[in-house]
Amino acid sequence: MSDARIDLNADVGESFGRWELGDDGAMLATVTSANVACGFHAGDPATLVRTCATAAERDVRVGAQVGYRDLPGFGRRFIDVAPADLFADIVYQIGALDAIARSQGSRVTYVKPHGALYNTVVTHREQAEAVVAAVRAVDPGLPLLGLPGSVLLQHAASLGQSTVAEAFADRGYTAAGTLVPRQEAGALLNDPEVVARRVVRLVTTHTLEAVDGTQLHIDADSVCLHGDSPGAVAMAKAVRSALTLAHIEVEAFT
Amino acid sequence: MSDARIDLNADVGESFGRWELGDDGAMLATVTSANVACGFHAGDPATLVRTCATAAERDVRVGAQVGYRDLPGFGRRFIDVAPADLFADIVYQIGALDAIARSQGSRVTYVKPHGALYNTVVTHREQAEAVVAAVRAVDPGLPLLGLPGSVLLQHAASLGQSTVAEAFADRGYTAAGTLVPRQEAGALLNDPEVVARRVVRLVTTHTLEAVDGTQLHIDADSVCLHGDSPGAVAMAKAVRSALTLAHIEVEAFT
Amino acid sequence: MSDARIDLNADVGESFGRWELGDDGAMLATVTSANVACGFHAGDPATLVRTCATAAERDVRVGAQVGYRDLPGFGRRFIDVAPADLFADIVYQIGALDAIARSQGSRVTYVKPHGALYNTVVTHREQAEAVVAAVRAVDPGLPLLGLPGSVLLQHAASLGQSTVAEAFADRGYTAAGTLVPRQEAGALLNDPEVVARRVVRLVTTHTLEAVDGTQLHIDADSVCLHGDSPGAVAMAKAVRSALTLAHIEVEAFT
Amino acid sequence: MSDARIDLNADVGESFGRWELGDDGAMLATVTSANVACGFHAGDPATLVRTCATAAERDVRVGAQVGYRDLPGFGRRFIDVAPADLFADIVYQIGALDAIARSQGSRVTYVKPHGALYNTVVTHREQAEAVVAAVRAVDPGLPLLGLPGSVLLQHAASLGQSTVAEAFADRGYTAAGTLVPRQEAGALLNDPEVVARRVVRLVTTHTLEAVDGTQLHIDADSVCLHGDSPGAVAMAKAVRSALTLAHIEVEAFT
Repeated sequence: MSDARIDLNADVGESFGRWELGDDGAMLATVTSANVACGFHAGDPATLVRTCATAAERDVRVGAQVGYRDLPGFGRRFIDVAPADLFADIVYQIGALDAIARSQGSRVTYVKPHGALYNTVVTHREQAEAVVAAVRAVDPGLPLLGLPGSVLLQHAASLGQSTVAEAFADRGYTAAGTLVPRQEAGALLNDPEVVARRVVRLVTTHTLEAVDGTQLHIDADSVCLHGDSPGAVAMAKAVRSALTLAHIEVEAFT
Repeated sequence: MSDARIDLNADVGESFGRWELGDDGAMLATVTSANVACGFHAGDPATLVRTCATAAERDVRVGAQVGYRDLPGFGRRFIDVAPADLFADIVYQIGALDAIARSQGSRVTYVKPHGALYNTVVTHREQAEAVVAAVRAVDPGLPLLGLPGSVLLQHAASLGQSTVAEAFADRGYTAAGTLVPRQEAGALLNDPEVVARRVVRLVTTHTLEAVDGTQLHIDADSVCLHGDSPGAVAMAKAVRSALTLAHIEVEAFT
Repeated sequence: MSDARIDLNADVGESFGRWELGDDGAMLATVTSANVACGFHAGDPATLVRTCATAAERDVRVGAQVGYRDLPGFGRRFIDVAPADLFADIVYQIGALDAIARSQGSRVTYVKPHGALYNTVVTHREQAEAVVAAVRAVDPGLPLLGLPGSVLLQHAASLGQSTVAEAFADRGYTAAGTLVPRQEAGALLNDPEVVARRVVRLVTTHTLEAVDGTQLHIDADSVCLHGDSPGAVAMAKAVRSALTLAHIEVEAFT
Repeated sequence: MSDARIDLNADVGESFGRWELGDDGAMLATVTSANVACGFHAGDPATLVRTCATAAERDVRVGAQVGYRDLPGFGRRFIDVAPADLFADIVYQIGALDAIARSQGSRVTYVKPHGALYNTVVTHREQAEAVVAAVRAVDPGLPLLGLPGSVLLQHAASLGQSTVAEAFADRGYTAAGTLVPRQEAGALLNDPEVVARRVVRLVTTHTLEAVDGTQLHIDADSVCLHGDSPGAVAMAKAVRSALTLAHIEVEAFT
């Protein structure tokens, strides 16, 4: 309550040509930070134009959702990319999205790795360093959004790069503070009310209950909402309503 | 001769992953403007990093060589892209290359359409307007390099966008001032000495002899050299030497 | 009525990785011929495996829905492909789908061009000949499904290749017997009952009413239903029910 | 000497559109088995047509060089593909190439994984099983070419699938019989005469000297020559000449 505040982020811009995915309009009416795909695992340029235009209208912050070059796999498969190639791929993606965002009156203000790259840079030092180097090469002031405690955020912080720690509204956590793998029981929470209460508690008390009942201490600057599952919009709205009711300000991280 | 000056441009950065094309090092030692591919018809991000790094070292101006999204066709096949999609594709490509160029100490300072897109925007108003709109959306001060008299350059000029007219060193011209189609006799000139003399004459007298002997008047700010044909480097060097001997300054257009 | 019979065909297998399109299960419960995408404009291999498996279970004939190599454009943009390249692209696609179909107990029994290629080969002789040559190179006995009167079917027939003429259930026709362009009024019919009556009349009387009221004579061996529009499944079921009620046998063409 | 015989295989068909790689004509004049790329990591359909036509003319056996779907990485980067997706990708590739080969009077008579997939299936059981299942789904009689002792060949053999063991002419071996990693000393042998002698000895005595001098016993049905390195053609000819001089018959495996 009181002076608490939180950022809500979600993946958008993930349609590709004829193939639509997610309800960008509804999600952009709810979140404060939009992780916009950059074309390597999702998002063709015309989709990005539309998504950035809506984000600009709604005054939602645009971030670059960077990933592996893998449209058929939606960026969800680990690829053993050489660091120099990954560096180039990430710079390319950020620049491409930034130009499109600027053409619509916005700009890229943070970077968040997607899918398998997100999971890989939690522990894979070489790829994590390549991502950080790429972000710094584009703009040393550009924050990186990721998992608290990940090699990615630790390495970025060690170089003085700004970092934003996020928690997941609808994902189960292990007692060790990592996410329950998607194929295991308790990985996904589907009840909007449960998820909403969980997020309010996280913001006000910095605690989250793990699947085994352990109380985890988590400092998160942003909470990730999923945009492409059935019921995604309803859950996002439930979370936002609960936060407002609890007098928590929902606004982009600073 | 005396105070004459000319820009020399060539396509570089056209390798793709394992596949190498052209001798970028040699071409970048000879030209003053480098049309760097942007990944849609040629040029993977790691290639672009290397090419932009070399261009920066050699103080060669970097331009965005934008094209259709068609790797298997190398951008040489007309695609009937909707203007809104083409607009997005072009903004995306310029932004991607610019970020890579900046990461290597350079930046995109002009835009040149490639292959089938180059030929299409000579006459195709909708696609030409989409390209001009894209360039203006990125930066209203970014010059467009193209064929004198093309719809592309005319439309850009009508909006106050800066344009750079180019001539082709090693291509035959018809009496009407257009290029002899590649499959016809006289389309390509292969003798470096002949081409070099032709370029010197073009710069000093603004005339070029068409295949039927007609003397054409052509005002060109830049001369295009081909970088990926056998003998490309030898021809580029012959042209540059002949210009120097004729006391013509070879420098990037302003 | 009585001994009348007709084939119903629809596009399926058009999902791509994470992106789902159409309700293949429902469409395969209704049609007798399935135009399965082949991966160049839609359909990743894992999607094709699932679609061919369902088609085999339901005893629905599998055809190769071949198209331009253009995932971002869904094969809906004309590409000026050289005939030799188009030949190779089509042989490749048919072979790929046939191997997948066979792995699931089915096989490719006809070929239907998709999207912009479909429209192009109505009049474009070089591309039409390349498609026919490709189909014949795979199997001189493989029928081609297309528009009656098209260069594609005429050329195929002139070589003794089997052809199957189709009509469109939900598309408006001009007085000349061509389709009303999608952006014009009357291009699409949305009322399932109207469309169902139209198909019954087409099969029993070989006539179709054009947008201006002209009665067209059309001999069709197959009727195309659209699978990816909202209401597609309801319309397909309405057509099939109306045909059954009219004692018209719905079965694959022979 | 005497009744000894050996198959020589090499990768061909690896060009892609504008980008040429290797001298297929020269390699196809030297080897007896051609591993033709299938379009997922290299080889566009028009290239495959040309390569298969030359192979058919020269009476060289055609094999499917299958790989990960990764053109920018040339199939040399491990991708964590799900087995069901890999199964579909492999069936698709074999079918596509087979149709093209048949259109040119040849056909696919074996399968060889390429690049990172080749290395992965030496030990990765799930991916190895997916490859074997795919080959069997296409044709239970289709042999798999690979590394002796690999999980791939062991699993194939356990199912009764025919296997062909290969040795590498120009790669260094460790004392354990595995290849010296490319970045280590002794990984590549460059002297054609040394390589030629090595191959003759391998065929006649079934021994190969490891980098540390250990004599390895290796039973190989085929020897792999590299087609895309500088000097590849000279080395291939040197090996073939040495085999002929030693009265060893060079012919496709049976």
